[in-house]
Amino acid sequence: MFQITVLYAHPADVEAFDKHYADVHAPLAAAVPGLQRYTVSHPTPGRDGAPVAYHLVAVLEFADAAAAAAGMRGPEGQAVNADLANFARAGITMVQGPGDAVV
Amino acid sequence: MFQITVLYAHPADVEAFDKHYADVHAPLAAAVPGLQRYTVSHPTPGRDGAPVAYHLVAVLEFADAAAAAAGMRGPEGQAVNADLANFARAGITMVQGPGDAVV
Repeated sequence: MFQITVLYAHPADVEAFDKHYADVHAPLAAAVPGLQRYTVSHPTPGRDGAPVAYHLVAVLEFADAAAAAAGMRGPEGQAVNADLANFARAGITMVQGPGDAVV
Repeated sequence: MFQITVLYAHPADVEAFDKHYADVHAPLAAAVPGLQRYTVSHPTPGRDGAPVAYHLVAVLEFADAAAAAAGMRGPEGQAVNADLANFARAGITMVQGPGDAVV
């Protein structure tokens, strides 16, 4: 499969970010053609209380690189990318590449 | 579910890292009790050719926080953590928290 991992920096306004992500961005992302799996997780401090590196982690899976490119370059994918400016102003780190499910 | 995302910094010796991860670390991680899903992806440069932020992304999923804690604190989880010193000397960024599958 092909996996896109999106790591969101801590937003200035957490409540507004979380609301926009849940109400607007996640539905936009879920509509991207070819998306086989899409998870969202909300990092929390561990036992050591160390600062958490990212506010939100999104993992998108496609069958392969071609499916991911087709989905993200199409109108639905473009809408997802355009929406980032509406709530992710603190920045994102995105990595993408081939992957496998070990378990 | 509860998701642990492990982001590995670029290693000095990519070949040695990849071999150790595949041959030793992934089998150790796959043996952690309660692990419901475990993916490994290998980020590659995008169309813009920008540097890739991380060398490898591992995503582990458990039923809930208690299952993740039990699995990672048990002997198998301790073996996973102990093995990091053997190959991940460039460092890791780990975040963990509750999540959901949107798709």
